[in-house]
Amino acid sequence: MNKILSTLLLVCAIFSGVFSQDNMEVPLPRPAQLIWQNAELAALVCWDMHVFDGEFYVQSKVRITPVKDYNTFNPQKYDMDQWIKSLKDAGFKIAIFTVSHETGFFFHQSDATPYCMIALKWQDGKGDILRDFKTSCDKYGILPGVYIGTRWNAFYGIHDFKVHGNNQFAENRQKHYNVMIEKIVKEIFTNYGDWTMVWFDGGAHGPEQGGPDVLSVFEKYQPNCLFYHNLQRADMRWGGSETGTVPYPCWGTFPYPSTGAGESAKKEILANNFQLLKTGDPNGVYYMPAMSDAPLRGNGGHDWFWEPNQERLVFPLENLVEKYYSSVGHNTTLILGVNPNAEGLMPDPDVKRLKEFGDEIKRRFSNPIATTSGNGEKFVLKLPQMQKVNQIVLMENIANGERIRKFILEGKTKKGWQTIFEGSCVGHKFIHRFDPLALSEIRLKIYESKAEPQIEKLAVYNIEN
Amino acid sequence: MNKILSTLLLVCAIFSGVFSQDNMEVPLPRPAQLIWQNAELAALVCWDMHVFDGEFYVQSKVRITPVKDYNTFNPQKYDMDQWIKSLKDAGFKIAIFTVSHETGFFFHQSDATPYCMIALKWQDGKGDILRDFKTSCDKYGILPGVYIGTRWNAFYGIHDFKVHGNNQFAENRQKHYNVMIEKIVKEIFTNYGDWTMVWFDGGAHGPEQGGPDVLSVFEKYQPNCLFYHNLQRADMRWGGSETGTVPYPCWGTFPYPSTGAGESAKKEILANNFQLLKTGDPNGVYYMPAMSDAPLRGNGGHDWFWEPNQERLVFPLENLVEKYYSSVGHNTTLILGVNPNAEGLMPDPDVKRLKEFGDEIKRRFSNPIATTSGNGEKFVLKLPQMQKVNQIVLMENIANGERIRKFILEGKTKKGWQTIFEGSCVGHKFIHRFDPLALSEIRLKIYESKAEPQIEKLAVYNIEN
Repeated sequence: MNKILSTLLLVCAIFSGVFSQDNMEVPLPRPAQLIWQNAELAALVCWDMHVFDGEFYVQSKVRITPVKDYNTFNPQKYDMDQWIKSLKDAGFKIAIFTVSHETGFFFHQSDATPYCMIALKWQDGKGDILRDFKTSCDKYGILPGVYIGTRWNAFYGIHDFKVHGNNQFAENRQKHYNVMIEKIVKEIFTNYGDWTMVWFDGGAHGPEQGGPDVLSVFEKYQPNCLFYHNLQRADMRWGGSETGTVPYPCWGTFPYPSTGAGESAKKEILANNFQLLKTGDPNGVYYMPAMSDAPLRGNGGHDWFWEPNQERLVFPLENLVEKYYSSVGHNTTLILGVNPNAEGLMPDPDVKRLKEFGDEIKRRFSNPIATTSGNGEKFVLKLPQMQKVNQIVLMENIANGERIRKFILEGKTKKGWQTIFEGSCVGHKFIHRFDPLALSEIRLKIYESKAEPQIEKLAVYNIEN
Repeated sequence: MNKILSTLLLVCAIFSGVFSQDNMEVPLPRPAQLIWQNAELAALVCWDMHVFDGEFYVQSKVRITPVKDYNTFNPQKYDMDQWIKSLKDAGFKIAIFTVSHETGFFFHQSDATPYCMIALKWQDGKGDILRDFKTSCDKYGILPGVYIGTRWNAFYGIHDFKVHGNNQFAENRQKHYNVMIEKIVKEIFTNYGDWTMVWFDGGAHGPEQGGPDVLSVFEKYQPNCLFYHNLQRADMRWGGSETGTVPYPCWGTFPYPSTGAGESAKKEILANNFQLLKTGDPNGVYYMPAMSDAPLRGNGGHDWFWEPNQERLVFPLENLVEKYYSSVGHNTTLILGVNPNAEGLMPDPDVKRLKEFGDEIKRRFSNPIATTSGNGEKFVLKLPQMQKVNQIVLMENIANGERIRKFILEGKTKKGWQTIFEGSCVGHKFIHRFDPLALSEIRLKIYESKAEPQIEKLAVYNIEN
């Protein structure tokens, strides 16, 4: 074999995990990323010690103020199954639990930090919310994720990843904290089975920034899990706002391996109100889909955590449905923050709204008029009869990457073919809504792509709002 | 009654707690101080997490380095009764246990800090060394004291009483630490019955110095206990060295209410290698006897805490006996630091030496040739026969204060009266050793005093060394 050819083949082999094999131009998702995008709906279950303090939550204060009395944690009606069932009923496929946020308290049984369930009178110090969460997720068929706060720790006095001071005292303390976090992360990664996703709150500073080496621990013990995120790696990206939406188009690819990789990347990402996070980059060589996150209690407020008498903030159903279109329908996973209360229950108004949301999504998308799928550049879908159409769902087989770059959707009216939408990104899912048209056929033409388009689904709906 | 007289009587009444009533010139000990001085021998039982780390203890490092793994605390042969019995056998009347030292770990069950026995796997987190200590002291008739470290806390990051930094982060953290310490102190003062002494390691910074208000908690819950010490109050004083000795004379009175009360006091106290602490001041208006402290393992080293293979440091018996003369015999309480090991036992060589020490002191002072007591300025003690004498013990009834200022001890030889010693301070106890003299009578003449001398004991010995 000649040397140049063998080198080329080697290069192909090296890149085969990143680029599709037929043309080496489209980044491919890892299996865990596929699971993530197929899930479409994920819940971030937010709990921390300040939920129990009876005071109004001010994040900037909580970050720098240790909890007065951790034994105010005393949820008398605690029922993890009720939490997870409420998510299941709402159609969520993934739930992510904040094992720690910013107070520094860890909701698991730890040998590395005493500031954990062991310290509590509640359940005689034997409680393990993280284990309950995992068990309940298994019971209800929800994929479990864990959110770990290491950036702020009001208990240990960690502020934006760092101990204050710069002498030996601070250096030793930082080192201790880093080792402690590595141990905690190992506990979470080894004592609770497999995780679908790990989310480091505000990212994770690695050793190169003076922080713990959580990535190595992750890679050793949870190689199949999603990692979010540090300077080296991000398996998904923040969608640039906490509105539960992204603009269109929102590509699943990104030009950097993580969202903080290097100064120029950071500068570009921060520019124009996180525009790059919102849109992604069709030419990005890293598969890194966006998340659309928002708290369920975000209507005239923005409560990730439960507060008393804030039920009015629960988004109305119509807002949640709108978010769905601008998140799932824009090629991202919608992450809704839900907030168990101080009694240990998902609050009734929230449970009710979640159920309504799940039911509404089911109602809307369970009964397509017609569907098709396949490979190629042109798809014609004949409807059973001329009838009103107002929504179209497109899905690529993203297992082989986002291939489509430009497409047109057309409908055949009594007067002939009419353009419905000219688009660019499809990715996992694109949902287009339009004023009802009476159509007999739908035509999808892909006129720019990086490889042969693979349409997982073309589905046509007439949905009553 | 004429007005001047009634005012004088009022002043008398006000000062009656401080000055003796017959001449208002001699500061009186509080009842707890009397107990303290009568005890003569106190043990400081030193334990902390670093005893278990297998590393050589370097105090400056431990102060600024959080313990790597607190579950290395796993004393498999732990036997508190063995500790306390070893002290009882040695003649100690008081034992003081370090519920915390500098690592920040607390050896009790706390609801205020998770970094306590609850955090440990040992005894399933139900252990309470402080309770065991108290129970065992009660069992063996030892008066219990507690030593509380608040000045250094490697776990919370407290360095010389303070959190590092000076912004809101540090201020909140300091406030939290202070409240935590107040809660812990309250736990110790309310959950374990009465204490004989509380010793704040390195003193206690009060609110006026940005520290917790431990004195108020103390005064509320342990009003009869001895307090050592802060800027406002010290019921005893450090003897100015960790040699287990003080010079002669060492007065039980002091010119300041505490050893750090004000800049001029501090300056005076620091001067000349703590001379004022060593000697006290016969004109001081505060009763504040000195402590003579030293670690039992101080012979060619200075180990307050157990370290492996350091048995050679245990003081030989003769050194301990010498310390006794220069501490108890100089009007102070001898405080010996003892060190339970990582197995949870007082080490055999230490136990053996303590027993030898107790036996030797008993041997020496159990059989006086003759004793007398009473009030007055002249005491003559006739011996049963002309015989060798080499030690004399003098004790004032310090319940009514240290009254003697100058005295002379004389012995009647075959040739007539001969001066044995001209002294100043007697206080609780003064022991004088001298080359054996054949005497038939002993005469004590007090030729300067602040009020009528009250001799609790004049005892004459012939002790074989």
